[in-house]
Amino acid sequence: MRIVVPAGGIGGARFLRGLQKELGVGPDSTGEEHSITVIGNTGDDITLFGLRICPDLDTVMYTLGGGIDEEQGWGRADESFTVKRELAAYGMQPTWFGLGDRDTATHIVRSQMMAAGYPLSAVTEALCDRWRPGVRLLPMTDDRVETHVIVDDGSGGQRALHFQEWWIRHRAALPAHRIVGMGAEDAAPAPGVLEAVEQADAVVLPPSNPVVSIGSVLGVPGIREALERTTVVGVSPIIGGAAVRGMADACLQAIGVETTAGAVAEHYGSDLLDGWLVDRADEGTSVRDVAVRSLPLYMSDPESTAAIARAALDLATELKEPRG
Amino acid sequence: MRIVVPAGGIGGARFLRGLQKELGVGPDSTGEEHSITVIGNTGDDITLFGLRICPDLDTVMYTLGGGIDEEQGWGRADESFTVKRELAAYGMQPTWFGLGDRDTATHIVRSQMMAAGYPLSAVTEALCDRWRPGVRLLPMTDDRVETHVIVDDGSGGQRALHFQEWWIRHRAALPAHRIVGMGAEDAAPAPGVLEAVEQADAVVLPPSNPVVSIGSVLGVPGIREALERTTVVGVSPIIGGAAVRGMADACLQAIGVETTAGAVAEHYGSDLLDGWLVDRADEGTSVRDVAVRSLPLYMSDPESTAAIARAALDLATELKEPRG
Repeated sequence: MRIVVPAGGIGGARFLRGLQKELGVGPDSTGEEHSITVIGNTGDDITLFGLRICPDLDTVMYTLGGGIDEEQGWGRADESFTVKRELAAYGMQPTWFGLGDRDTATHIVRSQMMAAGYPLSAVTEALCDRWRPGVRLLPMTDDRVETHVIVDDGSGGQRALHFQEWWIRHRAALPAHRIVGMGAEDAAPAPGVLEAVEQADAVVLPPSNPVVSIGSVLGVPGIREALERTTVVGVSPIIGGAAVRGMADACLQAIGVETTAGAVAEHYGSDLLDGWLVDRADEGTSVRDVAVRSLPLYMSDPESTAAIARAALDLATELKEPRG
Repeated sequence: MRIVVPAGGIGGARFLRGLQKELGVGPDSTGEEHSITVIGNTGDDITLFGLRICPDLDTVMYTLGGGIDEEQGWGRADESFTVKRELAAYGMQPTWFGLGDRDTATHIVRSQMMAAGYPLSAVTEALCDRWRPGVRLLPMTDDRVETHVIVDDGSGGQRALHFQEWWIRHRAALPAHRIVGMGAEDAAPAPGVLEAVEQADAVVLPPSNPVVSIGSVLGVPGIREALERTTVVGVSPIIGGAAVRGMADACLQAIGVETTAGAVAEHYGSDLLDGWLVDRADEGTSVRDVAVRSLPLYMSDPESTAAIARAALDLATELKEPRG
């Protein structure tokens, strides 16, 4: 099967690992029977200290390439923070970003290649030469799209924060009025993105953040339209009315969507979604024109995650077949 | 006294520490009776991985600011090399430069400020806000001057290497035909350099490399001329026919100067030099129109270095007084 997975960071990466396990796809066995193309969210990307940082692409790359800090889910294993401490000693701002030493090297390589004129997609491919994630990792776009969060400015007006500042520095605690993808309307899908979607046997939306991860990918003109023409099965990131992994509720609230498995599916819409997997806790959820299945959705280990991936692929296959 | 010291890296920095000790000048006691202005060599500067690196300025800053690796004489104490290892894992070149993690932060701050349009002199001042070296540290120029070394290319021709590549990667072992300061003829002294020289009570040339450190400073149009109008005492970097600290002989050879205390003084010339300190081993050295004194010149500890500094200042004072 040719599978396409639009993905954010931690949730997407963990789902992908389960999908790889289920398909027996990895660095040493790609491209035979099955292939996975990831459309990575770049709306979280930020330039700090002159370094171009792509948190979601890196999380996918490190997770599938065996370099991730397993416990926290992002950043490198055995990471140190000497550069960060020294920058702070010089009074450099910001100090809230968790810039690790190992990670810094990734950003230096990326920044150097981009300064030399390579598009992000080419840079990502070069970085993956080292990490061999066993998937084809494409950024959603080579253009600059930045997710900004509109919050109160404390004196009756509003101000925009870069998503990273809102998410990390303020821990998503400042109520968000709106979440906007700056530059999205002028962005084009990165080379290979639309082709991968067109040739896909199935598209799976992992339990990534539906607003700032999947939503950001869908915001690049052309991607949503291409996805609507193929079979898409989504995995709910909401279980029993709560985000499986922190703070997605703050994002949903900002766009006026209830934190329920059903509301997220309605938000994606039946023109996009063909199937929707919800947790047993949400059994009975129904979404008009979308096939809903319930099963345990906690990605507690690779085995349980593989079972979720299998269910998504099975549902996609079932939905793809001409109805009898 | 107002003292000016053109300086390279390790030798210059160690001499400066002795000078500070002798004068009782430091971070907490600058600018009262005595002041020291350092004109730092920037010919060794290099841009690697998008980072602007100024080895000599940093060696002076770290040494006087208490951050130096005392044993090796350059780089930060308690340094780690995670970024360097990771860059190598990505296949990034070059791998021969000793880029430490702590040091990397310095280069990031510098590169960021330079990208924002600040000249190197302003950047150096900002970095010194943290390190408080107790001297006014000026780069010789805000313009780009790079010391290149001309060597055989192995097929009958010649090629130019950046000084750092020749010095570190090849350990100065490739015979040098010439050493050139690329860009020097178009460079201007950094703000404050000429004023400091004009107002100096004494200029001391520390035992830095006479070719690629002091020579590089003298190569900036206007600096040598200003120094010729003031009282200059030099400390020989050559003791008993050998460089006190490795590889200066390779540089002298490249410019056709013998590795002797006398030859180096002749090379500097009596229009520049008023006094010249040589080691006891070189007692009897005479240089036309230059007052030569001999004393122990090994900078084995701060005390012996302070004694050398004292001798230089005494000789400068003596030479400055109208002869009776």
